[in-house]
Amino acid sequence: MTRIRSIEWICESPSGFVPGHIRILDQTQLPEREIYIETKDLAEVDEAIRSLRVRGAPAIGIAAAMGVAAHAQHAVDANSAVQAVHSAANLLAKSRPTAINLFHALERMQKVTASTPCVDAESLKESLAAEAVAIRDEDARMCRAIGEHALELLHSSHSVLTHCNAGGLATAELGTATAPIYISKQRGEALHVFVNETRPLLQGSRLTAWELSQAGIDVTLICDSTAATVMKQGRVDAVIVGADRIVANGDTANKIGTYGLALAARAHDIPFYVLAPTTTIDTTTSSGSSIPIEERASTEITHGFGRVTAPREIDVYAPAFDVTPAELITAIVCEKGVIRPDYSEGIAAIL
Amino acid sequence: MTRIRSIEWICESPSGFVPGHIRILDQTQLPEREIYIETKDLAEVDEAIRSLRVRGAPAIGIAAAMGVAAHAQHAVDANSAVQAVHSAANLLAKSRPTAINLFHALERMQKVTASTPCVDAESLKESLAAEAVAIRDEDARMCRAIGEHALELLHSSHSVLTHCNAGGLATAELGTATAPIYISKQRGEALHVFVNETRPLLQGSRLTAWELSQAGIDVTLICDSTAATVMKQGRVDAVIVGADRIVANGDTANKIGTYGLALAARAHDIPFYVLAPTTTIDTTTSSGSSIPIEERASTEITHGFGRVTAPREIDVYAPAFDVTPAELITAIVCEKGVIRPDYSEGIAAIL
Repeated sequence: MTRIRSIEWICESPSGFVPGHIRILDQTQLPEREIYIETKDLAEVDEAIRSLRVRGAPAIGIAAAMGVAAHAQHAVDANSAVQAVHSAANLLAKSRPTAINLFHALERMQKVTASTPCVDAESLKESLAAEAVAIRDEDARMCRAIGEHALELLHSSHSVLTHCNAGGLATAELGTATAPIYISKQRGEALHVFVNETRPLLQGSRLTAWELSQAGIDVTLICDSTAATVMKQGRVDAVIVGADRIVANGDTANKIGTYGLALAARAHDIPFYVLAPTTTIDTTTSSGSSIPIEERASTEITHGFGRVTAPREIDVYAPAFDVTPAELITAIVCEKGVIRPDYSEGIAAIL
Repeated sequence: MTRIRSIEWICESPSGFVPGHIRILDQTQLPEREIYIETKDLAEVDEAIRSLRVRGAPAIGIAAAMGVAAHAQHAVDANSAVQAVHSAANLLAKSRPTAINLFHALERMQKVTASTPCVDAESLKESLAAEAVAIRDEDARMCRAIGEHALELLHSSHSVLTHCNAGGLATAELGTATAPIYISKQRGEALHVFVNETRPLLQGSRLTAWELSQAGIDVTLICDSTAATVMKQGRVDAVIVGADRIVANGDTANKIGTYGLALAARAHDIPFYVLAPTTTIDTTTSSGSSIPIEERASTEITHGFGRVTAPREIDVYAPAFDVTPAELITAIVCEKGVIRPDYSEGIAAIL
């Protein structure tokens, strides 16, 4: 199975982590072109994050950590290496200010400078690169754990349906919603996957369909509005989606369209699973009605992909996310295991 | 209120119907440009139908009838006028071979030659043009009757949601699903309308949003996947859609996405109305499971906006229609009145 590597630290030395550079798959070029950016340059990493060349909260965190490590390599002594870490972290913190993983990653990189004796520039550079790679590896392990737990729920499934991209492109390796799909493929028990194209930005058709088919997985692309019909035809055994935020009672914010999908799944008695790391869980918010919903620019709908597809000055409502109430969710799967209703208790217990 | 006139016979004489010509709104140019084709040329009418410049079963029938009438005007005597009618009908019958209204309209035009004494070319030309205009006017009256009946159901509605284009562009004037919206606007009781963009061909955003906003109606465009969310927000009082085919038990085939919309409406206790002329009812088919569903080219999804938005050679499932089971339909409204469940009895009674 070809594994998608959205972001990697390429070690140039036979032992250790430095010298090294970052390799980023430029997601803005997908699905037409598979182009990698190879760089040690902080400004280039910053631009890649800002321009969504790398996207998905975990992948952004990894890219930022590697950006810090790469930038520190240019330092001539220990002091300037420490300074490089802080200035890089300050810059990258502004690249995508709502991505929580970004701040966690930058914090960890800054802690390295505090815990490493500031006398040896080379060992500091080595520690920084090692930490960035550790952040990546932890994410990869977390995705794998989510996938393993989810497979327990999918053992009798032949075909699943997913929405948007909670895939390998958004994480270190296997993705969250896609993790059980990749693991089942590795084990030779291939699942068939229906992928919603996911309007307006088409992350399903551009990204998920691309990464799954690259891995040799049996994919069928559909319009979002076709999901209910394939369910009715008996061709979907489970729906698996990621999450942007899961709150204390289990209500889940995810890409617009997830809620309608959950309603359709319920109408056809199809299990609906949310797969996400515990870092997605926000127990300070009690229910989904308190989750603020970002609205996107109307041009994402009216000028989809360069063509004008709606009248000028038409009113548009373009929420980025919707909220699926807990009662429509069969189970929430995180790296620590499977949470079933009642979610308030289950979430508190697993954390 | 500006009325959209998708297809008109323009009389050039102060009295009577001839000489005259056809004016067709070129729907392939919408929503960017409002361009009209004015012609007396049969080949141009044929091309307009084939190239979907005029679309929607009723509008196609009207265009074909007017094409026959226009072509006959070139005849120098009664005999060649009759010949012109038959050759024009033969040509146009091949333009969109699955459109039932096309054949009905061409049949009516041919009957005119049989019932008019073949001695006076000018009176035959007059009768032909009058018949084409009558076909148009009957369609306009039928749409208005559907709208009037539907308004009885919508008297307490402030906001409705519609899918695809069962609008004035597809018919002589008011459309079917859009008819109550236009009539309420004429009466000053404006409805707010959510329009689904309707992937893959975006007839909602390109056509319905355009024609309703041209008429000064308060429109909000949404992605298909946002419909369930606006329902949950309490912003939709009724869903109104057209139909491609209604079968004996009330099951209804309509543009892909209609079924999911009906499921969402049911989950939110929102009435779901199908508005269509009795010509759409097919009592020879007993239930929706027997309706053949056309599949469209995968490129409509993968190359939807002129840009490649999916991996090459990806498997795509692209049904043009889905079937909404009768139990999800609150009422079917046709020009003869409102049909409520049990539909098997109601449909038989109204026909």
